[in-house]
Amino acid sequence: MSGLFLTFEGPEGAGKSTQVGLLKGWLEANGHAVLSTREPGGTELGRGIRQLVLHQAAMSPEAEYLLYSADRAEHARAVIQPGLREGKVVLCDRWLDSSLAYQGYGRGLSLEWLRQVARGAIADLWPACTFLFDLPPEVGLARFEGRDRLEREPLAFHQRVRQGYLELAQAEPERFVVLDATQPLEALQAAVRTKLASLLSQPGMG
Amino acid sequence: MSGLFLTFEGPEGAGKSTQVGLLKGWLEANGHAVLSTREPGGTELGRGIRQLVLHQAAMSPEAEYLLYSADRAEHARAVIQPGLREGKVVLCDRWLDSSLAYQGYGRGLSLEWLRQVARGAIADLWPACTFLFDLPPEVGLARFEGRDRLEREPLAFHQRVRQGYLELAQAEPERFVVLDATQPLEALQAAVRTKLASLLSQPGMG
Repeated sequence: MSGLFLTFEGPEGAGKSTQVGLLKGWLEANGHAVLSTREPGGTELGRGIRQLVLHQAAMSPEAEYLLYSADRAEHARAVIQPGLREGKVVLCDRWLDSSLAYQGYGRGLSLEWLRQVARGAIADLWPACTFLFDLPPEVGLARFEGRDRLEREPLAFHQRVRQGYLELAQAEPERFVVLDATQPLEALQAAVRTKLASLLSQPGMG
Repeated sequence: MSGLFLTFEGPEGAGKSTQVGLLKGWLEANGHAVLSTREPGGTELGRGIRQLVLHQAAMSPEAEYLLYSADRAEHARAVIQPGLREGKVVLCDRWLDSSLAYQGYGRGLSLEWLRQVARGAIADLWPACTFLFDLPPEVGLARFEGRDRLEREPLAFHQRVRQGYLELAQAEPERFVVLDATQPLEALQAAVRTKLASLLSQPGMG
């Protein structure tokens, strides 16, 4: 694989997709081939799964996680791996860390089981760098209407998710870049670009 | 759990659903409360998953297995567990052994990984007895039109699945009852009822 796999994590309302869009433009202006994608829903199968997982009235946390994992398995093999093989910079809005934070810390599923399932799902696609857009849940939720099942969860759920993300970042400081998402979007984008410039200047990239 | 969980395995065309229907009538005539169900598709979520998994043009084996597992997780918690808590005899057309046979032996996924995923999916619902309707693939396929993705697989795939089922049965002879599904349906039903009579005469049942 000659490309670069980057993921963007954090709650809804943190501005991830805006940052991904700005970064894509900047990378392309600098001559890089970029693939921007997101989960759930980055494949045809994934769009069907997205409908099920976000709009079904109720389901068990285990079923929810397994649906996200099915989406991720297909997304990995049909979209992300081919992009990396073509040498692209792949920007992915949410990846396994979302499940560890939401279904693990948020819903209380065993992190060990989540990782065992992921072992076969993600096709060894570990991000070179993960940008965590950290935001107090009150701020993210205020920016957002309760559009799907996750966003209708109580505040305590979103607080567990935030704490989970921060613990994941602390456990892998070499992979995570934690950003204060209350900052203006220009400041956030500048921080992301600084990290990218450093990654792209490494041997084999750029 | 006070009920009895029984599963029915084997290829399409082996007559599982006919046998389940006959057995349900007999059990009810003998005063038992019976819940008859099947996978994929035993829940509202499951019917959505069934559409995805059987009619999507192509997907990775991993995504396929994770979709079946999501269906199974929901089916276990929303249908089978409640039925068993009410003391019912639960007859389930396909369960985890189907995935071990089709996605494991058939598609070559690691049985270890399949079992790790299942650990969190099936909510500890291990069948008291599994009836395996064994049939040469040529016979089952001839009884059946190529109606979905699985049935359009080459013969070698179905031969691996059959061999897988037989190996699973050999590894757990106390759980499996292997039946020659080329027999007339009355003979098959008689064999199933003999086993049921024995299970239901055990302490706590019947």
